[in-house]
Amino acid sequence: MRPFESTIPLTRAQDIIAAAAAPLDRVETVALRTARGRVLAGDVMAPADVPPFSRAAMDGYAVRAADTAGATRGTPVRLRCIEQIYTGQMPVQAVAAGLCSEVATGAPMPEGADAVVMVEETAADGDAVQFFAAATAGQNIGRQGQDIRRGQLVLPAGAVLTASRVGAIAALGHTEVRVYASPRVAILSTGNEVVEPGEPLAPGQIYDINSYTLAAVVAEHGGVPVIHRTAVDTIEDLSRAVDECLAEDVLVFSGGSSVGTRDLMLDVIRAKGEVLFHGIAVKPGKPTAFGRIGGKLAFGMPGYPTSCLTNAYVLVVPVLRRLARLPAQSIRVERMPLAARVNSTPDRHQFYTVRVEQGRAQPAFKASGDITSMSQADGYIEIDAGTTVVEAGTLVDVKFF
Amino acid sequence: MRPFESTIPLTRAQDIIAAAAAPLDRVETVALRTARGRVLAGDVMAPADVPPFSRAAMDGYAVRAADTAGATRGTPVRLRCIEQIYTGQMPVQAVAAGLCSEVATGAPMPEGADAVVMVEETAADGDAVQFFAAATAGQNIGRQGQDIRRGQLVLPAGAVLTASRVGAIAALGHTEVRVYASPRVAILSTGNEVVEPGEPLAPGQIYDINSYTLAAVVAEHGGVPVIHRTAVDTIEDLSRAVDECLAEDVLVFSGGSSVGTRDLMLDVIRAKGEVLFHGIAVKPGKPTAFGRIGGKLAFGMPGYPTSCLTNAYVLVVPVLRRLARLPAQSIRVERMPLAARVNSTPDRHQFYTVRVEQGRAQPAFKASGDITSMSQADGYIEIDAGTTVVEAGTLVDVKFF
Repeated sequence: MRPFESTIPLTRAQDIIAAAAAPLDRVETVALRTARGRVLAGDVMAPADVPPFSRAAMDGYAVRAADTAGATRGTPVRLRCIEQIYTGQMPVQAVAAGLCSEVATGAPMPEGADAVVMVEETAADGDAVQFFAAATAGQNIGRQGQDIRRGQLVLPAGAVLTASRVGAIAALGHTEVRVYASPRVAILSTGNEVVEPGEPLAPGQIYDINSYTLAAVVAEHGGVPVIHRTAVDTIEDLSRAVDECLAEDVLVFSGGSSVGTRDLMLDVIRAKGEVLFHGIAVKPGKPTAFGRIGGKLAFGMPGYPTSCLTNAYVLVVPVLRRLARLPAQSIRVERMPLAARVNSTPDRHQFYTVRVEQGRAQPAFKASGDITSMSQADGYIEIDAGTTVVEAGTLVDVKFF
Repeated sequence: MRPFESTIPLTRAQDIIAAAAAPLDRVETVALRTARGRVLAGDVMAPADVPPFSRAAMDGYAVRAADTAGATRGTPVRLRCIEQIYTGQMPVQAVAAGLCSEVATGAPMPEGADAVVMVEETAADGDAVQFFAAATAGQNIGRQGQDIRRGQLVLPAGAVLTASRVGAIAALGHTEVRVYASPRVAILSTGNEVVEPGEPLAPGQIYDINSYTLAAVVAEHGGVPVIHRTAVDTIEDLSRAVDECLAEDVLVFSGGSSVGTRDLMLDVIRAKGEVLFHGIAVKPGKPTAFGRIGGKLAFGMPGYPTSCLTNAYVLVVPVLRRLARLPAQSIRVERMPLAARVNSTPDRHQFYTVRVEQGRAQPAFKASGDITSMSQADGYIEIDAGTTVVEAGTLVDVKFF
């Protein structure tokens, strides 16, 4: 075995990873219907005005504003209605002095009219319409190009496509959009003991958990998980599996990252590329390696499911969002008292899972090998490397999964 | 035209909708690989212990703790190593007094041993191993069933499947999971003027925006959008379109919900079911109808894209999450000064979009018909019905999209 000679602080590990990661330049065209959450690869300019014509912004009557001067409830103005203009049809008559046309919200404005009086301020009797309020020129009209002007920048490259931004692109008539590619993440569980769920377990074997948790985290944060078959602990099998993973942007291996004689992942990364660090002063997740293979980022995660998943949140999510050009994750944080005393390992930054019960943070951490340390928790608190005890009642910031 | 006789307050509208909506009871079996974000339809019990055997929790040596009594750096204890036990293989030798076995993290414990000493506290010379610290019985062992005991409740019905919970189900060896069905939402844009993006625009026509924005919001909040072809403003076409939508759980129509003579959606809802309200004292989004058709919830949204999308966030998202049995949406809120004075319409609760610029909330609202009111905003502030002016510099809570 080859014990850790040293570990590096978490912040140093994060800096090394950030320095090695550059946003992806690869772009692709996707259907606008599926573009939610993607990142625009180029500026979106308007090919035409939106709306493409001036339209009524209210249900009511299109008038010449001057014709309604002085109108009140007591002294209404009377105009003759010459046309009903619905949406989707062009007016055929111009509005001359003394005339008006009924307009539906969204219908094109007739020539001659320069204002819309809302129906609530009118009363109709056949084709005679009474107006109870004076209009001002331009009122209740959505002018041609008011929303978006032809040639205008509608959305800049780098914009994340929220619902309204998808809508703005639809408004231009586009059905496709150029976006940056989503980072593809190769996920590889390793270990002689690891068996795919659904298969029978032989003595000494356990089910693969990490490819499931890692894939969920990757998909949650804008990546595309590419799950590989489990590899056994031989240089040959690991080496072949890693080669297969090199087609993707990021490689996340779990297992074989520690100090045992069959912890070979470090050797494989070193043989094919470079190891940038091995061992982080965190708990859980200390035996973690990070390196580069042929320009691809490679994470060697502990096999323990809680160690692996914690590291995925702390180390992989930020880099994934950076590659995807997404903003940093927005984590929900709530401050509350700790329900029971927690002891923390000296000299390691600890992520300690908690369950929220009756407004207090109940310690939920069992062991790094126990997935229930996380699956029965709502979130975690962080305990810095210099702190060994957090007393019950201390106000802590719970960060929710 | 049929002017609004009255509107109801937003909170009343929300109460009416909540009272009409019950969580879905429909369940389905999905692949665990795709189950992230879904809601468990039944308790998940453990069919076997996890781990299924006691295992080493550290790389080191399995010992009888009593054999290491008194060991220190100065006075090490020496034991003879009889076996190397790797993960995935069963030990063949028992550890008797004076003996030890090398164990890898995750490897099954050999018979006779009751503790693991981590490699960092040992030194090996051939098959002789020195121990520099006394072990206590049970240390560094992951006991059989420590993570999950056979027969134990692992996850209760109603649990939302986060990454770690997907992992806990994988740990049991399952590849599928029973979850509640995701609400299916029929989305129908109506209006003679509305044209599908990609088609040419005739005079007086505009592109459909609402089916794009609504689908994005529905997918974001656990629903399945089912987009229908656009319907024109005739009772016959609307009626046929609505009938087609009745296969889904929720119906969201946009357009035709106001007071014009061709705003027929209200008539269609009333003819096929019941209208529970029409008109909400909000801006944007006042001309909104809600009802029930054959047990399905039906929203008649304004055709204006910003009105429609605001209502989707305010009215549809809560009900969708309720149907899906998801917790209420977690909205990111930041308090900051308003950059410029905002006038609000009296007697209407206003959702006023803002852009965050240099730590201040810059008003971004243009008009309800303008999608750029939202696509160029980062979030919104709420201005209650009793407030007509919010002065520049006022601290406001910006809620992010």
